[in-house]
Amino acid sequence: MSKKTIIGIIQSKILNNYNSNLKAVIKNIKKAANRNAKIICLPELFLTNYFCQTENHSNFKFAEKIPGKTSKVFCDLSKELNVVLMISMFEKKTRGFYHNTSIIINEKGKILSKYRKMHIPDDPGYYEKFYFTPGDLGFKSIKTKYGNIGPLICWDQWFPEAARLTALKGAQIIFYPTAIGWHPKEKKTLGKAQLDSWVTMQKSHAIANGTYVVAVNRVGNEKKGNKKIEFWGNSMIIDPSGKIIGKLGNKKEGILIREIDYDKIDTAREHWPFLRDRRVDFYKGILKNPDDD
Amino acid sequence: MSKKTIIGIIQSKILNNYNSNLKAVIKNIKKAANRNAKIICLPELFLTNYFCQTENHSNFKFAEKIPGKTSKVFCDLSKELNVVLMISMFEKKTRGFYHNTSIIINEKGKILSKYRKMHIPDDPGYYEKFYFTPGDLGFKSIKTKYGNIGPLICWDQWFPEAARLTALKGAQIIFYPTAIGWHPKEKKTLGKAQLDSWVTMQKSHAIANGTYVVAVNRVGNEKKGNKKIEFWGNSMIIDPSGKIIGKLGNKKEGILIREIDYDKIDTAREHWPFLRDRRVDFYKGILKNPDDD
Repeated sequence: MSKKTIIGIIQSKILNNYNSNLKAVIKNIKKAANRNAKIICLPELFLTNYFCQTENHSNFKFAEKIPGKTSKVFCDLSKELNVVLMISMFEKKTRGFYHNTSIIINEKGKILSKYRKMHIPDDPGYYEKFYFTPGDLGFKSIKTKYGNIGPLICWDQWFPEAARLTALKGAQIIFYPTAIGWHPKEKKTLGKAQLDSWVTMQKSHAIANGTYVVAVNRVGNEKKGNKKIEFWGNSMIIDPSGKIIGKLGNKKEGILIREIDYDKIDTAREHWPFLRDRRVDFYKGILKNPDDD
Repeated sequence: MSKKTIIGIIQSKILNNYNSNLKAVIKNIKKAANRNAKIICLPELFLTNYFCQTENHSNFKFAEKIPGKTSKVFCDLSKELNVVLMISMFEKKTRGFYHNTSIIINEKGKILSKYRKMHIPDDPGYYEKFYFTPGDLGFKSIKTKYGNIGPLICWDQWFPEAARLTALKGAQIIFYPTAIGWHPKEKKTLGKAQLDSWVTMQKSHAIANGTYVVAVNRVGNEKKGNKKIEFWGNSMIIDPSGKIIGKLGNKKEGILIREIDYDKIDTAREHWPFLRDRRVDFYKGILKNPDDD
């Protein structure tokens, strides 16, 4: 495996139109590949508006089988451009079982792996428990020609367990396709703190595990009835020491390209040797939730 | 249990003299109690210079039995002042077994619990593995009149598992008595990043667990031969949303007093309901370290 690679992440504004979104995304993936990106990641559920803003049965029509029509488009594109793609999709597993899923497609157009979002949020405007069964495939690291990729999704980013398990599986880069933003009425009072918490958690995963961490968010306002989310962008790439080595803004679409160096994982883990000192003999309590007070 | 309490933390410059350190600390605890602090925490191993800067057999003489002479001083003081104290000590368990230990003493002068540092560092200038057997008592939360206290120590602060387990045990405040600083030759190039990583990790524990997090560090330069550590202070109190609600500087001794409100734990956990969504059915891998590549 090469010691360096180039990551490309695409921060998108998502329209209420599958075909327009698909067209825009293909164009941006080509741009990123032209700038030499070898692993390219898009935001969570980038082909549709963030439909989880409401609970609406008609939204199940957006779910697809994997492999299927949409995954084929990206398999062909991976092969054409000789890149690894991480693609987030609304998966129909079988009747009544729907998942928030990502696939990793290698540079030959083959789907290497499927990851089903393990931690499902449910919060005003983020009604994901209505749509998605919690993932049943566990945490993963996928070997690709360009590095070992750890696929996680959005809400997973708040769980140190998810990052740790993914790193222990061998992941060198943890990717979080994401859809997170502000409720306009909260933005003034809580917006800065919420964004700071989000950045803090992702830096903490890089530091605690000595891995690259990448978050790819959407941007822009999406309105459903009288409800609106302002997706806050801030897509970023963090190195294994916890330093943000590239970040996009909170308003505009953009493509961020960064070369990363896998030797920095060794450097981080040798200088902050946390993994060496884990007390696996005393971590059993992690597998339980507490009893009553 | 009361819904609010007052925490006092004491950031100290430590001299190479047990009696002077003890005298200074007693004076500062009295000051904090006078300002109404109910739970008072001191830095790690505050009665001696940070002797782990070198590997020197003569330093084992600083170790003491618990209960013993020093713990009695603080038990008497707790009772006199009607406060809960968290006291870090170099413990001699039995011949050949030494621990980096903290005790929690209640307001009646009784030792409620002993915690033995679970994660032991070993880094240039921080040769703790030479002195301390890794803790054998596991992670804890201690009920006191003023709240449930989670005792962790320094290097533990880099392990999400330690914070999580302590929070799951019921801790409302996680305390980290600490001894961390810069190597003068690294400070210019790495100092800012190292401090930022340290702050980030502690904020992350507050956010991920919805607990108060408190770090109490020493300050000042300590020299052993031609080696020096500049302890970086920055002792701080973080609320359950991850906001730093009080912080001391990186040069001076100081006492920081903050009222905390336990209802903020509920608020944090209701608004960022991570604990609800833990996937304990898939966390088993946390109990292992990875195989070879």
